[in-house]
Amino acid sequence: MLHLKSETGQRWLEQVEKNTDEVLIDHAHCEKKAAGTALNLMFAYIEDEELCREMTSIVNEELEHFHMVREILKQRGIEFRRLKPSTYGSQLHELIRSGEPQRAVDRLLIAGLIEARSCERFGQLRKHLPDAQLRDFYDSLFESEARHHAVYVRLAKHYAPESEVMARLDELATAEAAIIATGDENARMHS
Amino acid sequence: MLHLKSETGQRWLEQVEKNTDEVLIDHAHCEKKAAGTALNLMFAYIEDEELCREMTSIVNEELEHFHMVREILKQRGIEFRRLKPSTYGSQLHELIRSGEPQRAVDRLLIAGLIEARSCERFGQLRKHLPDAQLRDFYDSLFESEARHHAVYVRLAKHYAPESEVMARLDELATAEAAIIATGDENARMHS
Repeated sequence: MLHLKSETGQRWLEQVEKNTDEVLIDHAHCEKKAAGTALNLMFAYIEDEELCREMTSIVNEELEHFHMVREILKQRGIEFRRLKPSTYGSQLHELIRSGEPQRAVDRLLIAGLIEARSCERFGQLRKHLPDAQLRDFYDSLFESEARHHAVYVRLAKHYAPESEVMARLDELATAEAAIIATGDENARMHS
Repeated sequence: MLHLKSETGQRWLEQVEKNTDEVLIDHAHCEKKAAGTALNLMFAYIEDEELCREMTSIVNEELEHFHMVREILKQRGIEFRRLKPSTYGSQLHELIRSGEPQRAVDRLLIAGLIEARSCERFGQLRKHLPDAQLRDFYDSLFESEARHHAVYVRLAKHYAPESEVMARLDELATAEAAIIATGDENARMHS
């Protein structure tokens, strides 16, 4: 359902357990970036009514999640600060083809794969984190990330036939699995 | 309360009456841009908790207004399309000083002045438009634009003492009045 080609393993979970505060800060930034991505997609494809409606919902939800993470940081006395992002997003964005409608398809599918990976990792966190509050928190976010993934894949079909979209999703998911497997020396949501 | 240095006159109202459909389309684009401005300000000043909360509300409200205008366009059979924007926004943005915290003050005050002018013009439209549905519509938006103006001015005071903020608002409002007085050959919300 999430169209991912790999499952997150022990390496990342250990990185998170050793650097939970930093991953939480990164998580807040990820929610903010997800809102920005949705708004940029709305601006780029403003004639597409369904896309505009769905992007509006996603912007609202991601900003709500951003504030939820900020609240958790505050409760824990962790100072919210700027962090060097992982290279995951920028590596994925290099795969976007130029020229429409391929560009639309790729932007939507990559946004969808980032949601899928977040969902899969929230699934790991809700099972394996030692901290019960955080386990519950990630459980509460799991479903919306899965839904966002499905929305992005559906919207990509506005810009190419279903068979092409699904073939491209397969290609991009293979690339995504390779990128996420290399990891990142900094502990991040997508390291 | 809106800190504007001029009142919209007959010239603009006549332009709107002759080109109501085009101004409605431009209005949808303005709501979209207002959401983008608020999200950009949130990204730029992400450590500022109150700013993040207020920008989130503004993003949500502007996107809601965007969809309201789209709905009115649809009801009237007016095709939503890209439009050359008026030069109002870009002329105002040229006034932003470089270097923080002046840049923050100016970005917030200019966003606030754009809200103020929109509010003032919605006030004109709710009084003078021949179309009753549109009069009601602009009446329904009037209050939120006034509120957004007040929010932006209040947030600017996070970045400079009140006296400096109010002196700069006075300067920028004078410039805004000159820019809006020159108008624009295309009928727009800020022509």
